[in-house]
Amino acid sequence: MLPSEIHKIKGIVITLSGPSGVGKGTVISRLTELCPAIRHSVSITTRSPRPEEKDGVQYYFTDKKHFEEMIAAGDVLEYDEYCGNYYGTPRKPLIEAVEKGEDTILDITVPGSLSVMQTFPDTVSIFLLPPSFSELRRRLESRGTESPDIMQKRLDKAYNEIEMTKMFDYVLVNENLDLTAGRILSIAEAEKHRYRRLKGIEEALLKH
Amino acid sequence: MLPSEIHKIKGIVITLSGPSGVGKGTVISRLTELCPAIRHSVSITTRSPRPEEKDGVQYYFTDKKHFEEMIAAGDVLEYDEYCGNYYGTPRKPLIEAVEKGEDTILDITVPGSLSVMQTFPDTVSIFLLPPSFSELRRRLESRGTESPDIMQKRLDKAYNEIEMTKMFDYVLVNENLDLTAGRILSIAEAEKHRYRRLKGIEEALLKH
Repeated sequence: MLPSEIHKIKGIVITLSGPSGVGKGTVISRLTELCPAIRHSVSITTRSPRPEEKDGVQYYFTDKKHFEEMIAAGDVLEYDEYCGNYYGTPRKPLIEAVEKGEDTILDITVPGSLSVMQTFPDTVSIFLLPPSFSELRRRLESRGTESPDIMQKRLDKAYNEIEMTKMFDYVLVNENLDLTAGRILSIAEAEKHRYRRLKGIEEALLKH
Repeated sequence: MLPSEIHKIKGIVITLSGPSGVGKGTVISRLTELCPAIRHSVSITTRSPRPEEKDGVQYYFTDKKHFEEMIAAGDVLEYDEYCGNYYGTPRKPLIEAVEKGEDTILDITVPGSLSVMQTFPDTVSIFLLPPSFSELRRRLESRGTESPDIMQKRLDKAYNEIEMTKMFDYVLVNENLDLTAGRILSIAEAEKHRYRRLKGIEEALLKH
């Protein structure tokens, strides 16, 4: 028997945070294409599904009453309110994935990531930065036709989020989609071999 | 200007330790083939060069008097005595590599690795384990025709070294040469993106 078989390690929880417009969703799509073994945690929301969206794929869709019951029951690991709708992380699927040894990545806000770290102290937290702040402004401006006021609010929020980079384990500058996805894979691979996730492996080995 | 250009990070020092027979040398050869940008730190020794060995390639060769002068002058980062000869790590080339941003891997004893960690607190330390203790015994026995006494001493030493696994950041089970070398590359790649090596990158970015 191999020590790696004796030592079945738990799944790794990876949080990916970063300002709006930095490309978190696109990076996660590319990552799960490159490595389908990494599971993307599906959020739960009270907003209505768009025509192309399926329950359990882009989001779990529910109503406000049920979401608030879930919060009260402790079934939501972290949540946020945005434009009058809730968005959150269901606790149970994440705990099950960890126990089964499945790695999971979450596209999550900065405070959401900090909440996940409290529940899973071994969380691997990654902050995604744009190549420059002016590039982020360009990306946000190209998205829509919002008023200068709303755009300024978004940029202020992005600025404040970027200042939180120091709370994260890893930082990646999203200059190139494949490079960024590859770096997340390297981080996941490295983290699987940290001694603190493999405590006692040497004792198991010395018996064989 | 990209933040990655503003933030030229220092070279990473990687120590690879593990019991005799685990395959450290072979792994490092494969690693530097796969990624020539990672430099193998050449040790200095007082033993005589073998016919095929060149000064500065396998080892730097010197005499005992000079080695002891280097120790006295603080030019040897760590050293050990084995069969009446000194083996050590020259301090200057390693410091220069770190400052130039070159990553360096050292094939080093457990106490040697602990010394390197003291000089470079950001050292990435990796312990290499055999697939099993009986496999390590087999590998050591296949090497030569030593007396049972000497073989037992080697196995005892290996046993004691394996018990030190817990002092290391990462642990790899050397089941397959390419897998092990690839995992070291992932560890190096991940470590380059740890926030503590990139402190202040977000402030540099917010200015651009």
